[in-house]
Amino acid sequence: MNRRTFLAAAGACSLADVDRLLARGDLKGKLSRADLPTPALLLDLDAFEANVAKMTRFARERNRALRPHGKTHKCPEVAKRLIRAGAVGCCAAKLSEAEAFAKEGVTGLLVTTEVVGRHKIERAVRLASRHKDTIFCVDNAQNARDLNEAAGAGRVKLNVAVDLHLGRTGVMPGEPALELARQIVSLPNLKLAGIQAYAGSASHTTGFEQRTRASREAMGKAVETRRLFEAKGIACPLLTGASTGTYNIDSEIDGVTELQPGSFIFMDVDYNKIGGAAGPVYNDFDNALTVLTTVVSKPSSRFAIVDGGFKAFATDRTFGPAPKNIEGISYRWAGDEHGRVDLASPSAPVEVGARIEFIVPHCDPTVNLYDRIYCLRGDAVEAIWPISARGMSQ
Amino acid sequence: MNRRTFLAAAGACSLADVDRLLARGDLKGKLSRADLPTPALLLDLDAFEANVAKMTRFARERNRALRPHGKTHKCPEVAKRLIRAGAVGCCAAKLSEAEAFAKEGVTGLLVTTEVVGRHKIERAVRLASRHKDTIFCVDNAQNARDLNEAAGAGRVKLNVAVDLHLGRTGVMPGEPALELARQIVSLPNLKLAGIQAYAGSASHTTGFEQRTRASREAMGKAVETRRLFEAKGIACPLLTGASTGTYNIDSEIDGVTELQPGSFIFMDVDYNKIGGAAGPVYNDFDNALTVLTTVVSKPSSRFAIVDGGFKAFATDRTFGPAPKNIEGISYRWAGDEHGRVDLASPSAPVEVGARIEFIVPHCDPTVNLYDRIYCLRGDAVEAIWPISARGMSQ
Repeated sequence: MNRRTFLAAAGACSLADVDRLLARGDLKGKLSRADLPTPALLLDLDAFEANVAKMTRFARERNRALRPHGKTHKCPEVAKRLIRAGAVGCCAAKLSEAEAFAKEGVTGLLVTTEVVGRHKIERAVRLASRHKDTIFCVDNAQNARDLNEAAGAGRVKLNVAVDLHLGRTGVMPGEPALELARQIVSLPNLKLAGIQAYAGSASHTTGFEQRTRASREAMGKAVETRRLFEAKGIACPLLTGASTGTYNIDSEIDGVTELQPGSFIFMDVDYNKIGGAAGPVYNDFDNALTVLTTVVSKPSSRFAIVDGGFKAFATDRTFGPAPKNIEGISYRWAGDEHGRVDLASPSAPVEVGARIEFIVPHCDPTVNLYDRIYCLRGDAVEAIWPISARGMSQ
Repeated sequence: MNRRTFLAAAGACSLADVDRLLARGDLKGKLSRADLPTPALLLDLDAFEANVAKMTRFARERNRALRPHGKTHKCPEVAKRLIRAGAVGCCAAKLSEAEAFAKEGVTGLLVTTEVVGRHKIERAVRLASRHKDTIFCVDNAQNARDLNEAAGAGRVKLNVAVDLHLGRTGVMPGEPALELARQIVSLPNLKLAGIQAYAGSASHTTGFEQRTRASREAMGKAVETRRLFEAKGIACPLLTGASTGTYNIDSEIDGVTELQPGSFIFMDVDYNKIGGAAGPVYNDFDNALTVLTTVVSKPSSRFAIVDGGFKAFATDRTFGPAPKNIEGISYRWAGDEHGRVDLASPSAPVEVGARIEFIVPHCDPTVNLYDRIYCLRGDAVEAIWPISARGMSQ
C-alpha cells in the first residue's frame, strides 16, 4: 500500500479504524506529521533516544541503578526501551498502572503508592505471583499485616519497601521507620527490599543550588534511616528515590542506590523553568514531547482559535503550553476543547488550517489524556505506541 | 453468582477483567460503593434522573428544543437517556466525539467545533452519509467551499450552521455572518440549518443579574443576526446556544430556538459557585457526580493522603475538589496521583483505608479522565456506563 492508497483507506474510516490500520504495518513513508488528526501527542524520536542514552549512561557511570518512573509515559514500549538501554525496571504510581505494564511484559516493577483495601491487596498478590520481582511500598503496620496475610493465602512472598515520608505518603524517617522495618522482617510472607524515598517538593524547587539544599536535606533523612536499619542488623540493599530535577544531586549522595526519574524522557515547560546546574533554563534533556494542534477558527486578525484546550493539555501549572514551531504568538486557555492564540507578531502565517505545535506545560498528566503517542523521525511517523496505562490511576 | 462468589471472581482478575465481568451482568446486590477500586467516578442516579427530568420539563414548557452538550459526559448511554426524556439530539464538541456517539446509535448530532483539514472533512462526509441529521458548524468561506466539495464527492448534503463569534470560534455577527450564510445557500451540497451561538464567558459569569446582562448582550447579537438572515430571505429555523449557566436566561429571549446545556446533568463546584436566580449558591440542579478516593497514607495526625490528584480531578479551576461525605477537612493538591487532606476537625474518622468522596471542581474535563462511570442507587452499583468518547478531542 503506498501513501496515497493508505490515506484514502484511512479517510474512509473512523479515527479508531485509522489507528488500527496504522498500528498494524510499517508506517515509513506512509504517514507524516501533516496527516495526523489533531490534537495529537507527538514524540520526537531523536530527542527521546538522546534523553534515554544520556540518563542511562549517567546512572551507569555513577554506579546507581535506574528504575525510571512509568507514571510519566504509561507506555509499555517506552518502559521496555528504557530497560533495553540499561534500566533495572519501571516504577508504577498505582497498582493498576503496574498491572498494565506487567501485562505487556515489563519487568522489575516498583509500585510507589501503598496498596490499600482487601480487593486491591488480593490483586497485588496475584501480580506478585506472576511477576515475582515486583516491589510494593508500605508505610503502615496494619497494612503490612494485611499484605502478609494475603501473601500467605496466595503462597507468595511479597517484596516490600518502607516508604519514607519526605512530604507526601510514608512513615516518618528514623525510629518510626525502623519499627515498621522490624515488623516487616518479623512477618513470614514479606521480604524487606529496602527504602523508597521520594522528595516531591525538592524535585521542583527552582534554582539548582536551592534544589540541591532541599534534596540533600530530604534525602539525608533517608540515608540516615538506611544506616539505622543496617546498624540494627536489618539488611537494606535498596534506597530508591530522586527525580528528573534531582538525578544529578541525589546520585552524589552516598547511600542512594537507585534513581527513579520520569520526566527526563519527554521534558516539559515545568522542568525547563526550574533551572539547571549550568544556567537559568534546565536543558539537561531535550524537549521530545509536543502536542500538535490545528487552527480551526480565526475570528479576527489579532487572534486565532486552535483545537486544544483543557482536554489536550494538563492544566495543573500556572502557565500554559509554549509554541514550538512558530514565534511571536502566545497561547491562552479558551475552554475544554480550545485555545486562543494571540498573534502579536507571528513568524509564520496563522490561518484556518495552520498547524501549531506546543511544548506541554506538564508532561505526566498531559500524556494521561491520550490513548496513543505518534513517534516521529523528522516529519515521518515511524511508530504509534499505545499508552496502555492511560487512566490507570487505581 | 452471589455477591461473595462474584467478588471472589473479581478479586482474581485485573481491573480490566473486573470491569468486563461487571459490565456483563445484572449488578444489583452484587457490588456496592465500598467495593469500587478508587479513584472512581460515581454517578448518583436519583440526582441525575431528577436533573434530566427538570431540564427536559423546563425546555418543553418554554417551547424550546433541547440538545444537551455531550462534551460533558462523552457517554452514549447518557445521550440516549436524554433523548428518551425529550431531547432532540446531542451536541458533540469535536468530530471524533460525534463519531463515538454515532457509533452507539445517538441521533441528532450537532458538531459544535469547525471541521478543518482534508482528512477530517472526508470523515465528516462519511458520518453525514450514515447519519443524515448531523449538523456541522462553519465560520469560514474557504472551509464552506471545502465541505461543499467533499459533500459533492460523497454525494451527500451536509447540514451546516453558521457559528457566530461570541468570544471563541465563529464569524462576526451581522454582515460577516450574512455574507457567509449567502455563500452557504449558494453552494449546492450544503444546507443552512441556522445559527450556532455559544457565549462561553456569559455562562460562567458570577451573579445571576450580571450573568443575565452578559448573556442578553451576547445572545442579542445572535438574535439580530437571525433576523437579518430572515429579512434577506434566508431561512434560519435554528438558533442554538445557552448553557447550564444561562438556560433560564436564554430561554426568555425571543428567537433562541434551542438550548444546549451540558453540565446540569452532573453539576460541579464551578457551577455551584456562580450563584443562582434564588441565591448565592447555584443549586437549580443536584450534585450527581463525585470522585471516590481512599486514604492510602496517614503520615501524621494532622493530615492524610488520598489516592486522587491531577489525574483524578480536572485542575483548570483555581479551586480543588469539595468533600461530600465528611465535614471539617479540606483537600489540597499533592501531585499527579495524590491529594492531601488536612484534618482540622473531621466529622468522621480518617484512617488508612477510609473513603472520602468529593464533588469535582469542573465536571467536563474530570469525566474525560475516566473510562467508566459507576452508577449508584443509594450504595448499590446499578450500572457501569462506558465513557466511549473519552479522549475523543480530535
